[in-house]
Amino acid sequence: MIRFECDYTTGAHPKILEALVNSNSEACPGYGMDAHCENARAMLQELCQAPDAGVHFLVGGTQANTTVIAAALRPHQGVLCADTGHINVHETGAIEATGHKVLDLPAVEGKISAKQIDRYCQDHYADPAWEHTVQPGMIYLSLPTELGTVYSLAELEEISAAARRWKLPLFVDGARLACGLAASDVTLPDLGRLCDVFYLGGTKAGLLFGEAVVITNPNIDHDFRYLIKQHGGMLAKGRLLGAQFEAFLTDKLFLEIGRREVAQAMRLRAAFEEKGWPLFVDSPTNQQFPILPNETMAALEDKYSFEVWTKVDADHTAVRFCTSWSTTDEDVDALIADIQRL
Amino acid sequence: MIRFECDYTTGAHPKILEALVNSNSEACPGYGMDAHCENARAMLQELCQAPDAGVHFLVGGTQANTTVIAAALRPHQGVLCADTGHINVHETGAIEATGHKVLDLPAVEGKISAKQIDRYCQDHYADPAWEHTVQPGMIYLSLPTELGTVYSLAELEEISAAARRWKLPLFVDGARLACGLAASDVTLPDLGRLCDVFYLGGTKAGLLFGEAVVITNPNIDHDFRYLIKQHGGMLAKGRLLGAQFEAFLTDKLFLEIGRREVAQAMRLRAAFEEKGWPLFVDSPTNQQFPILPNETMAALEDKYSFEVWTKVDADHTAVRFCTSWSTTDEDVDALIADIQRL
Amino acid sequence: MIRFECDYTTGAHPKILEALVNSNSEACPGYGMDAHCENARAMLQELCQAPDAGVHFLVGGTQANTTVIAAALRPHQGVLCADTGHINVHETGAIEATGHKVLDLPAVEGKISAKQIDRYCQDHYADPAWEHTVQPGMIYLSLPTELGTVYSLAELEEISAAARRWKLPLFVDGARLACGLAASDVTLPDLGRLCDVFYLGGTKAGLLFGEAVVITNPNIDHDFRYLIKQHGGMLAKGRLLGAQFEAFLTDKLFLEIGRREVAQAMRLRAAFEEKGWPLFVDSPTNQQFPILPNETMAALEDKYSFEVWTKVDADHTAVRFCTSWSTTDEDVDALIADIQRL
Amino acid sequence: MIRFECDYTTGAHPKILEALVNSNSEACPGYGMDAHCENARAMLQELCQAPDAGVHFLVGGTQANTTVIAAALRPHQGVLCADTGHINVHETGAIEATGHKVLDLPAVEGKISAKQIDRYCQDHYADPAWEHTVQPGMIYLSLPTELGTVYSLAELEEISAAARRWKLPLFVDGARLACGLAASDVTLPDLGRLCDVFYLGGTKAGLLFGEAVVITNPNIDHDFRYLIKQHGGMLAKGRLLGAQFEAFLTDKLFLEIGRREVAQAMRLRAAFEEKGWPLFVDSPTNQQFPILPNETMAALEDKYSFEVWTKVDADHTAVRFCTSWSTTDEDVDALIADIQRL
Repeated sequence: MIRFECDYTTGAHPKILEALVNSNSEACPGYGMDAHCENARAMLQELCQAPDAGVHFLVGGTQANTTVIAAALRPHQGVLCADTGHINVHETGAIEATGHKVLDLPAVEGKISAKQIDRYCQDHYADPAWEHTVQPGMIYLSLPTELGTVYSLAELEEISAAARRWKLPLFVDGARLACGLAASDVTLPDLGRLCDVFYLGGTKAGLLFGEAVVITNPNIDHDFRYLIKQHGGMLAKGRLLGAQFEAFLTDKLFLEIGRREVAQAMRLRAAFEEKGWPLFVDSPTNQQFPILPNETMAALEDKYSFEVWTKVDADHTAVRFCTSWSTTDEDVDALIADIQRL
Repeated sequence: MIRFECDYTTGAHPKILEALVNSNSEACPGYGMDAHCENARAMLQELCQAPDAGVHFLVGGTQANTTVIAAALRPHQGVLCADTGHINVHETGAIEATGHKVLDLPAVEGKISAKQIDRYCQDHYADPAWEHTVQPGMIYLSLPTELGTVYSLAELEEISAAARRWKLPLFVDGARLACGLAASDVTLPDLGRLCDVFYLGGTKAGLLFGEAVVITNPNIDHDFRYLIKQHGGMLAKGRLLGAQFEAFLTDKLFLEIGRREVAQAMRLRAAFEEKGWPLFVDSPTNQQFPILPNETMAALEDKYSFEVWTKVDADHTAVRFCTSWSTTDEDVDALIADIQRL
Repeated sequence: MIRFECDYTTGAHPKILEALVNSNSEACPGYGMDAHCENARAMLQELCQAPDAGVHFLVGGTQANTTVIAAALRPHQGVLCADTGHINVHETGAIEATGHKVLDLPAVEGKISAKQIDRYCQDHYADPAWEHTVQPGMIYLSLPTELGTVYSLAELEEISAAARRWKLPLFVDGARLACGLAASDVTLPDLGRLCDVFYLGGTKAGLLFGEAVVITNPNIDHDFRYLIKQHGGMLAKGRLLGAQFEAFLTDKLFLEIGRREVAQAMRLRAAFEEKGWPLFVDSPTNQQFPILPNETMAALEDKYSFEVWTKVDADHTAVRFCTSWSTTDEDVDALIADIQRL
Repeated sequence: MIRFECDYTTGAHPKILEALVNSNSEACPGYGMDAHCENARAMLQELCQAPDAGVHFLVGGTQANTTVIAAALRPHQGVLCADTGHINVHETGAIEATGHKVLDLPAVEGKISAKQIDRYCQDHYADPAWEHTVQPGMIYLSLPTELGTVYSLAELEEISAAARRWKLPLFVDGARLACGLAASDVTLPDLGRLCDVFYLGGTKAGLLFGEAVVITNPNIDHDFRYLIKQHGGMLAKGRLLGAQFEAFLTDKLFLEIGRREVAQAMRLRAAFEEKGWPLFVDSPTNQQFPILPNETMAALEDKYSFEVWTKVDADHTAVRFCTSWSTTDEDVDALIADIQRL
């Protein structure tokens, strides 16, 4: 079985694993106060050109999303989000469990726009009984989105301007940011400049686990470690996160991994298009969503794992193929050959 | 610096690390549905003689405590707990953040008794306006406790009987259970039989991270994976937990590690007693709490790390020395020699 | 100014006020344990033909909704609801504040169907990663809906059957149930038989305040008074609720009030239709939603208060006129005359 | 049966009831935006010499406590409180249900001190791992306390200074403030000056219901109406609160009622002392706690209702007698005569 079902099927990239093994016998203070974390923090501040940003290493994405949003909102506020957004769909109500409504906006290919944000806020404050409805208190984006699409720098700048117009912190979920940086014109300094908080995801880019949260808004960063602990996100052996991120940031390994994932996905995409399979969404990153005839889908399932996304009609199904840090050229070659043969 | 400040200063025990490295390139399904997790689950069910128990692997203790308690309680219920209990003191209000009051009972050397539970429940239901107060809904113990003490099997049986008398699920926090099993007459099958839910901690016994939650009460186990996900505890690469626990359970490595930690702690304890330093609490496990003259404490701080526990009087301080899986005989020898020399 | 903006602009119906004044100097036990509450409870059990139902009197609708839903759901569950439902739109995220997601379904004229419930549940359990999404745990309807429409008995029976098929408690918000009973073929015994919990609203039918929650499902009723207290809903002078509901239930005053509100609304509706104003929604109850030319709307605003509902196009606006227990025939006559004159 | 069990056994003081009856047929806007509320707001601002304070009328005390505390705290913060405080003991965990721990301090006769607050905060920030514990985020006092005792102006000034030293908002629960003002040297302007938020309770001083929350700290007042709505505390017919408070504040009726309750309680107290019954606590307000021989207690129970407070020894019990707005001189005379006769 060659696995394209997601980007977290295998363990760690060799350089990450090596960093963990090499530091294994060091005795360090716990809870992210060790030298590896300190070093990785400084590296990320520099890469983002945000020397005063708070940098916090968390184990997973749901934890990062929940902790950041809880830190930013007052109880009567909700978070604006694409209706397809991860926090709205795939976190078992983790945001609501902290007391906040997800205010979902209809997304186009996974994305929302500055115009939608403006209209939502205008409507909210135009209602004379506004206090009977949830106040928009934050904006949540994913880059790339759940559908693999990316915001351009121009789009992100517009959204950031809308966020500041309405005094709403802007939060970018970067669970797959390594691919996002590889496939868009957005850079880490752009994110540091335009967001209040974002994260660079490791789990889906070759770490065992780990998301690096960068907070440039001091109101959100204030006392943030209390919130990490309260949400069960303060890893006792925090050095595991520090050591992995040191390796991940060194020589921009994250970008190398992201570029490689994207390049392999583009080879798959070309094969899908050549075969005449339409794409469910126009994704420039490591997730590709071809629409397959159902019998073709069945034929591929014996040898390849992939995710069934949605039925398009009685005879066709959109599926998701993901490349990852560990996808080999041979894996891609094999799939392309089988596609051509079908 | 020789570190005795806690039992999570170093990485993983060699056998654990080996298991991780060896399985690194395997491609597995995510979220704990892989073969390593399945195998570790079956091993633990057998060790506990609880073939129908739910077994769930979580990353850390606060997460385990919060998720289990949230799964067990209705909104108006609280959890009975020693006032020194971890959930009452050291989790930044994580339990309250899920809506539940911690009902603290005055502990003796970290422990509570069946009698205290009985009295609390009698008093609650004797109040004609009982619905104005939080209903006791669960019992939380730690084995060992925060102070290193252990419940005997007889004590645990009494508490379990009280729990069943009042229809309260009994939950045992086993963050340091490896030492607890090594230093008490309680066994894994006893825990499977007497508790509704407990966990075997890995983080403080030589894993990179990981706690294995065993749930014998089907009402708590029902839909438990939803709660794990909601609390941000569902590790994408769940195989990391499965592979570590396979190694940890094989040939009862956990017990070997626990026994070794305890044996080294007993050597330290003998040295403290020989020196005439009283013990703050009578702990049979890997945490030892000698009361030192302040100048002695200062003299040791250059070479050894340990935790300041509490001031006993103007001239004396109780401190905590912890042994861990990576504490060497040489570490212990050095400290004993320095104690004798002082 | 003649007020049609809502059904809670005036105080209490004379018979309700009389009951309050007459009982004012009685000394009663607090918190709903008095003889008035006991009597009103028994009257409602009999009217519903539900002798074992729990009956609880709460001050307001948001409180009733929040307390009932919190009592029924486990943490990972959400409540299915029309997207126009009160809990989804007009309670400032009160449900989310107790940790639960509102799972909104696209409504038609404020209503949802058994088919929608079936499909939602089928889709949920068809997803192999269902634990990553919120589990449907309850169904919430309003009768009448936010748009004044009603469920027929046949529709309610279908929904109740779907609820039982999926083991989901069915909850009917009856903030305007007095009108709902007057305008549909559903009766109180039907609600007692088909729902797990519902309430008969007093605030919008001539009480100073008060909603009578009827719970036929013992799992939800169990310990319900704890939840009332926790949500701040246990009125110290609970006798105020008991005395009002005694008067409200005596000789079915609630039905008399509901019928009168509906009859006056039907006179307004006939005038709108005669004038050629389309109706935004086909409501048989005390809320009517004509679509007015904007200049007509402006002309009416000097003399009448009503609520702007939504802009239909550049020149037309849907507005809401509400009749209430205190709407007089003269109020209605005046408005009709002005409509005809316009 | 002559009732001394609590101060909310009867309905409303005649002047309050008259105000409700007189305004019953007025048609007003809902949700506290009516002229009665506006007028009562202005009256209270003037009485407190706090022209910019937010004033909000809520139905009950638990609701007021929960809403204020939720508005003031971030998620990782708790509220400092006497261990006997109402929010710690008698609100079914309502504060915890909003996610916050009650940080209880050992009280003396129901009171806490500035020194205790200082020490708690010093200890919190002295702990190098402070983020593992709940951060103190607010101070909650009751005036009078649960035990009827009062803070002097000097004590309140010291506590206010400590609160400002640690940047903690000070919140005074004034459920029985009418008696507190009658029995201490604290005035409404003092409360306006020294607290961030407090309330003047109506329920226990002759209103049907209602607590007037005064917020001088704009950070807490900001968006407060959203929080009222979210907590189910926004009464549809808010005019009921406005009209009652207009009457309550006119000519300082609240003070007249408070003084009368206290005067009658002092007559009872003198009778207890003359009889040689010790007092469980030295209360200068309308709650008196004599310690009775058990047979005497039994003898009184036929004719008088009172609350059993706590067993003092095998033969004696502390009980609570409460006077209220509706306690007559004849009620007091009868009880005194029976005490003398016993």
